[in-house]
Parts: sequence; C-alpha cells; structure tokens
Amino acid sequence: MKPQTGDPVAPQIEADLKASFARQGLMRHLGAELIEARYGLARISLPFRPELTQQHGYFHAGGTSAVADSAGGYAAFTTFPENSSVLTVEFKINLINPAQGERLEALGRVVKAGRTLTICQLEVHACSGERRELIALGQQTLIRIEGGV
Amino acid sequence: MKPQTGDPVAPQIEADLKASFARQGLMRHLGAELIEARYGLARISLPFRPELTQQHGYFHAGGTSAVADSAGGYAAFTTFPENSSVLTVEFKINLINPAQGERLEALGRVVKAGRTLTICQLEVHACSGERRELIALGQQTLIRIEGGV
Amino acid sequence: MKPQTGDPVAPQIEADLKASFARQGLMRHLGAELIEARYGLARISLPFRPELTQQHGYFHAGGTSAVADSAGGYAAFTTFPENSSVLTVEFKINLINPAQGERLEALGRVVKAGRTLTICQLEVHACSGERRELIALGQQTLIRIEGGV
Amino acid sequence: MKPQTGDPVAPQIEADLKASFARQGLMRHLGAELIEARYGLARISLPFRPELTQQHGYFHAGGTSAVADSAGGYAAFTTFPENSSVLTVEFKINLINPAQGERLEALGRVVKAGRTLTICQLEVHACSGERRELIALGQQTLIRIEGGV
Repeated sequence: MKPQTGDPVAPQIEADLKASFARQGLMRHLGAELIEARYGLARISLPFRPELTQQHGYFHAGGTSAVADSAGGYAAFTTFPENSSVLTVEFKINLINPAQGERLEALGRVVKAGRTLTICQLEVHACSGERRELIALGQQTLIRIEGGV
Repeated sequence: MKPQTGDPVAPQIEADLKASFARQGLMRHLGAELIEARYGLARISLPFRPELTQQHGYFHAGGTSAVADSAGGYAAFTTFPENSSVLTVEFKINLINPAQGERLEALGRVVKAGRTLTICQLEVHACSGERRELIALGQQTLIRIEGGV
Repeated sequence: MKPQTGDPVAPQIEADLKASFARQGLMRHLGAELIEARYGLARISLPFRPELTQQHGYFHAGGTSAVADSAGGYAAFTTFPENSSVLTVEFKINLINPAQGERLEALGRVVKAGRTLTICQLEVHACSGERRELIALGQQTLIRIEGGV
Repeated sequence: MKPQTGDPVAPQIEADLKASFARQGLMRHLGAELIEARYGLARISLPFRPELTQQHGYFHAGGTSAVADSAGGYAAFTTFPENSSVLTVEFKINLINPAQGERLEALGRVVKAGRTLTICQLEVHACSGERRELIALGQQTLIRIEGGV
C-alpha cells in the first residue's frame, strides 16, 4: 500500500534523517532542531538568538530561508527509496510578516513526489507561547540523486 | 544627474550600510563580510567554515541564500533616499552547481529601482584561488520602507 | 466584522470583477471564464481547444500560467477597497503534471492581504468528467494601485 | 569543440525547432513568431493585438509569460542531443514595467545546461519603433526528456 502524507516513517529512514541532519554544520551552527519527520513531512524548530537577527533585531530572512529549505529537503527525503540523496534545485519564498518570536517553526510538505523531481510547499511560523503567525511561504523543487545520504 | 549602476556611493550611505551590516547578527554569525557597495550593487564574501555545511560538506543552500538575499538588500538600499529601510518581499534562487570552494561571493544588482518596489538579480560564485564558478542565480523583490535603517 | 476567505462579495464588487474580466482581451481570446469570486478567492475555467496546446497536444504552460495569474489577481481584487486596481508584481509556478483534460480550473487564494502587497497561492487542476488532477502550483505577489479598475 | 552560447545551430535542429513551434496551437493563436534560434538562445516576437490585453489595454501578463516560457524552452532545446524533448519544470517572472508597445520580444538564454536540468534566464522587452524597454525578467528550470520532440 502506498504510504500517505503524514504516515510514520520506518525506523531506518528516521535514523538516516537524524544522522544526515546531525552532519549539517549550518543547522547546528544556527541552533536548529529536526523535531518531526513523517512520510512527506518534516518540521524544524529554530529558537531565537541574537546570532540570527537582521538589522532590526528580527530573525534574518536568510535564517528563515535556511530552515524552510532544509524542512523541504527532509520532507522529500522521507519519500525516497534507500540509498538516495536529495539536492535543492530551486526555491522561492515570500516573507509575509515580520519574523519575530521565541522561535521559528518551518514545515516542509511534499506536494508531488516524482521519480526524479519532488515539489514541496514550505511554511514558516513564528511562535511565542500559544501564538503562531505565518511569516513565510515557499515553494521548492528538489532532485533525487542515487547513492549517498 | 541620475546615478548609474556601479557609481560610487556617498560616504554617508556607505557608513549607513556598514552600520546596518554590523547590526545583522546572522551575517556576523556566518562570518560574512560586505566587501563592496556601489550604486545599485553590493557584494558579500562568505569564507568556508565547517559551520556552514550541509550533509555532504559543501556550503548549505541556506547560507548561500542568506548572503544572496543580503547582497540584494544592500544593493537596493544604495538606491534609496535617506531615512529609508529595506525589506525582502520574496526571492527565488536556483542552486545550479555544488557550492564548493574557499569562499562564496554573492552579488546583488538592482535591475529596476521603483518608488515602492525594487527588483534585483542575485548571483553567487564559489571561489578558490583564481577559480570562480557560478553556483546560484536568483531574483528578488524588495520594498522600501520610510524611516529606520 | 472582518470578512473571511470564502465569504460572498458585495454585488458591486462582483459587478466590477465581471466588468474587468470582460475587458481582458486575452481571457476572451483563450476562452476563459470567471466562474467564482468570493472574498479572497477566484476561480477561472479554461475549456480545452487546439488553440491552447503546446507541441505534444497538451495545454501549453503559457495558458496554464495565464489563468493562474488572473485567478490570483481577481482573488486579490476582492479584498481591496473600492477604486483600487491590482497589478501582478511577480509569480512563480511549478508545472507538476501533464496538463491534459477537458478543461483547466485555476484557483487563486489570498494568503496575506496587506495594505500595499497581497500574496496569493495558485492552483490549477485539469478536469475531465469527475476526475481532477493538480497540474500546477504557484505563488504570486500583487500590488494594489489607487484608482482605476 | 563545445558550442558556445550564440553559435548558429545545425540545420536539422533549426528545422526541428520550427516544426515544434508550428505545432504549438497557443503560440499560433497568440500570433507569436520564433524569430531567432542559436545555441542556448531563442527569441520570440509577439505583435500587439487587442486579443492579448488585460483590463487596461496593455499586454496581459499571461501572454508575456507564455512567450517568455516558450523562449526559454526553445533556448534549452537547442542545447539538447537529438531525440530529446523539453518540459518546463517551473518558472518565476517579475513584471517590472507596463507591457505597452507595438510588440513584445521574449529572449530565453541558457545559463546552465545540465544532463537532466537546464536553467534559463528570461527577458521580455516591449518594443515600439526604436524604443525597447525591459518589462519582464524571469528564471526558469527545464527538464530534458528522452524521445519525442
């Protein structure tokens, strides 16, 4: 049976994902954490730090984009056969509200899983306590590469 | 006379730019440096560090995008009247070659400077010694805000 | 009370929309029809004709994009005060499945209605009888202009 | 020797291109003409007609996008081996000036010709007599498909 978006992933895939995330120097340097991975979905949390700001003290669009791009990459990866890896071909992101809050939460969601190309939607919310506000919206194209992780 | 792309900027604008760049926690955290600012042009250098990598040891697309976005923002800013600030509305970036080298160099170039919206082209090269390779190409929309820097 | 996405629009706005659509030479030339307009939503239908094809006999991406762009424009327009008009700043569209069917249906949906800029998500389905397939997905930035329609 | 962007294309490729263009119902319906094809470059002209307008009487963004997309597709196609065909994966276009003039001229230019994916830059000028104004700027990702034209 074909897995559905949101289904749990196999333990091996989850382990591969976490190993891959741990090897990303940038995600560690930013303080990002992979907090959820399901079939076709990945969620990354990025707590606020002064090291992530732009000139007005909000989250810099570069950090917002970095976690959005990674969330899409991991979402795509969950739908791949073993021994595949993923590269971002391109993405587009609209920054629709000031990125202000205790943390950002980036969600990548696979819209089309093709043999070669995968398309994801990307959302980033700024979260403070119970408050969640959509601050960025994106669309991403990824390519599956045979071999490697 | 209307300034041309590539003209030197007034000392006050250059000072504003450098002050603004220095206030960007993320650019400092990544180790990025604003190395050139002319009318309608800005160039940022990002030396390689393990803290900037993705899972294969290349520059992470998130870092590449961050410096591309900032280069466009500063390029736009050079064309604004005093007491304006700039926000990224959206950008799109294609990652066209592996981002591998001693440093990245991001160039933002204003294509259309409007009263409200400014459009930039973004290029990122990977540089190692004399070798320069185009690794990313983008297009960005920015909005001018009255007041602030 | 603030209107919600999907609420009916005032008769005057609906009349303005239809008058505006009727003045679009391209939409008429393609055979497109504005079939639904609600607050923050617009839907356009484009029946198949050989005049809309690319070299393989499917709908040409240019026609798909044209109705997607227009659907977003009308969706944005429903949220504007009177005596405003709308221009597309930019859009990005992924063509994710072959555009094959009896007709295309383009949906524009406002994600963020700002004072100056409005952001829409765009979806295009190919429809044949009961079958609907998502064939394109886009994201669009629009600007509100005072005066005119 | 590797061909350079702007080199003339082989007569067989030029014949394939024109045959392909002639099979595009939409390009014929819009009145578009493929006026130049070189290695990595294609140029399409779209003369003004009331059938191409939006509600203010300018060229509709949908027509502008359609010729930009096709110009990129043909530019990519010139770099492909025989028995390949091309599909647009996605494109992004900024509409930077009112599309007003006697005709539009769309230029597609290959920036990266990969084995699977090709990246193009897209420019559209509005032309009236000697006057040329850049009215749209885009970036496009295309995929090469084995077989067919």
